[in-house]
Amino acid sequence: MERVLRIVIIGSGHVAEVLVRAFSEADGVRLCQLFSRNAQRGKALASVGGCPWEDRPSMLAQADVYILAVSDRAIGEVSAELPLDRGLVVHTSGSCLMEEISCNVARRGVFYPLQTFTAGREVEFREIPLFIEAEHGTDYSLLEALGSRLCNSVYRSDAALRRKMHIAAVFVCNFVNHLYAVGEQWMSANGMDFSVLKPLIAETTRKMLESHFPRTVQTGPAMREDYPTLEKHMQELIPYPQLQEIYRILTEHIIHMKSTDGKL
Amino acid sequence: MERVLRIVIIGSGHVAEVLVRAFSEADGVRLCQLFSRNAQRGKALASVGGCPWEDRPSMLAQADVYILAVSDRAIGEVSAELPLDRGLVVHTSGSCLMEEISCNVARRGVFYPLQTFTAGREVEFREIPLFIEAEHGTDYSLLEALGSRLCNSVYRSDAALRRKMHIAAVFVCNFVNHLYAVGEQWMSANGMDFSVLKPLIAETTRKMLESHFPRTVQTGPAMREDYPTLEKHMQELIPYPQLQEIYRILTEHIIHMKSTDGKL
Repeated sequence: MERVLRIVIIGSGHVAEVLVRAFSEADGVRLCQLFSRNAQRGKALASVGGCPWEDRPSMLAQADVYILAVSDRAIGEVSAELPLDRGLVVHTSGSCLMEEISCNVARRGVFYPLQTFTAGREVEFREIPLFIEAEHGTDYSLLEALGSRLCNSVYRSDAALRRKMHIAAVFVCNFVNHLYAVGEQWMSANGMDFSVLKPLIAETTRKMLESHFPRTVQTGPAMREDYPTLEKHMQELIPYPQLQEIYRILTEHIIHMKSTDGKL
Repeated sequence: MERVLRIVIIGSGHVAEVLVRAFSEADGVRLCQLFSRNAQRGKALASVGGCPWEDRPSMLAQADVYILAVSDRAIGEVSAELPLDRGLVVHTSGSCLMEEISCNVARRGVFYPLQTFTAGREVEFREIPLFIEAEHGTDYSLLEALGSRLCNSVYRSDAALRRKMHIAAVFVCNFVNHLYAVGEQWMSANGMDFSVLKPLIAETTRKMLESHFPRTVQTGPAMREDYPTLEKHMQELIPYPQLQEIYRILTEHIIHMKSTDGKL
C-alpha cells in the first residue's frame, strides 16, 4: 500500500485553489492544513479541501511536503517567517529559482504545474504537466510520488529549463490570449460582435492541436506572401500605431520562418 | 417548397473543397458543375460533389450562382475569361472588392465564409459565419437563400466591413497560430517536447471561448506587471532578437490595454 503523504498548502490564491481541489480528489495524500494570511479566502478554501485553516505560524501543522502557493515575490518572505525547519518546502513558480525559498528551510524544492489558472475555473489537473526540482537528490522520489498522485506527467527540470518552458508558455498562452483581446477590441471598436470570430478561433486551435508542427498549418496573407492584402491591412491600421506594429512584426516573422524551416 | 438553387463552383483549392462538401450535404441546392483548370484536383472534387468536372469555358453550365473559389489574384482574370454573362457571380475572398470580378459579368457579389481552411480537413460549415455582398439589391435575397442553406449565420457586409473582419481574423487566427509555431520552435531548440504545452494551449482557448471579454481572463507576467520576470525573459531572448521584439511589443501592449480598459 502506498504511504499517505501529508501536505500543507500555504496561500489562498488561484494556484492554492487548484491544488486544494486536486488534492481533495487524489488518493494517497492527506491535506493537513490550509495556511494563509487572508482569512476569508483561506477558510473558504480549507472548507473545499476538508481541512483546518490556520494563520498562526506557531500552529503550522507537521507535514511531509509544504507547498508555497504564493506570489513569486512573497516566496522568500513567507518561507523565512514560518517555522519550516522540518519537511520539504516547495514553491510553485515557473520563473523563480528554488533558492528563492529561505535558506533557513532545511529541504527545498519546486513543484510547478504548467497551466493557466483563473479563479473559480476548474481544470483537469491530471492532464497538466508537472515540473519538479529538489535540492537533495533523495527528495526527487518524494516529489515524484506526490506528483504522480495528481498528474499523469511528471518531469524533472532545473531552473534554466523551467524558465525556458515558462517563456514558451508566455508565447502560446498569455500572448495568444492577448491577441484574442486585440481581436475583441478591434471588432467592438468597429461595431461588430466578437462572437462571430469564435468558430474561427476554435478551429484554429483545434487544427493546431491535431497537427504535430503548427507551422505546417499556418494560413493567411503573410503565409501566402499576399503583399497587396498585407499592404491594405497596414494602411487600415495607420490610426492604431501599436496594432500596426504588432501586425508588422508578426507578419515579418511568419515570412521569416518560412525561410528557416522552423529552425530558431 | 424551396426553389432548388443551381450552383457552379469555379476552382479546386481549399475553399472549393470545403464548399463542395458543404453543398453536397445541403438541401435546396444542386451542384451542377465543378469547373477548374487543374484536372486532377478538379475531377477528384467533382467526384466528391457528385457532379461533372469541366475545364472548357464554352461548356460552362447554366446556374443561378457561380462561385469563384479561386485565389485573390485570379479573381479578375478567371471572371474575364469565362462566359459569365448570365447568373450571379460571387467571389469568396475576405480582402478583395466585389469590383475585382470582371465588369463583363452582369451581376456580381461576394460570398465570404470566415474560417481557416486546410486541405483534407473537414469543418462544420453550418457554424461558420458567412458574409455576403451584392451589386444589385435584389441579389441579396438570392445570396441569403443560398447562404442559409449552408450556414446558421449570414450577414450583409460591404468591402470595408469585410476587410476589418479579415484583419481581426489575422490577429486571432493567423497570428495566434504563428505564436504556436514560435512556441514549438523554441521548445524544440531547447530539447523539449512541444506536446507538453498542449494542455495549456487547449485550456487557454477554452477559457477565452467561455468568457465574453478575453482581456478579463488575461494572465501572465505582463498582466501582473511582474517586472523581474519580464526582465529575465528579455535577457534570455537576447540571442533571438526577433523573438525578443515580439515579446517586448506584446508585453507592452498587454500593460497598455490594462490602462485603456479595452478601448482601442
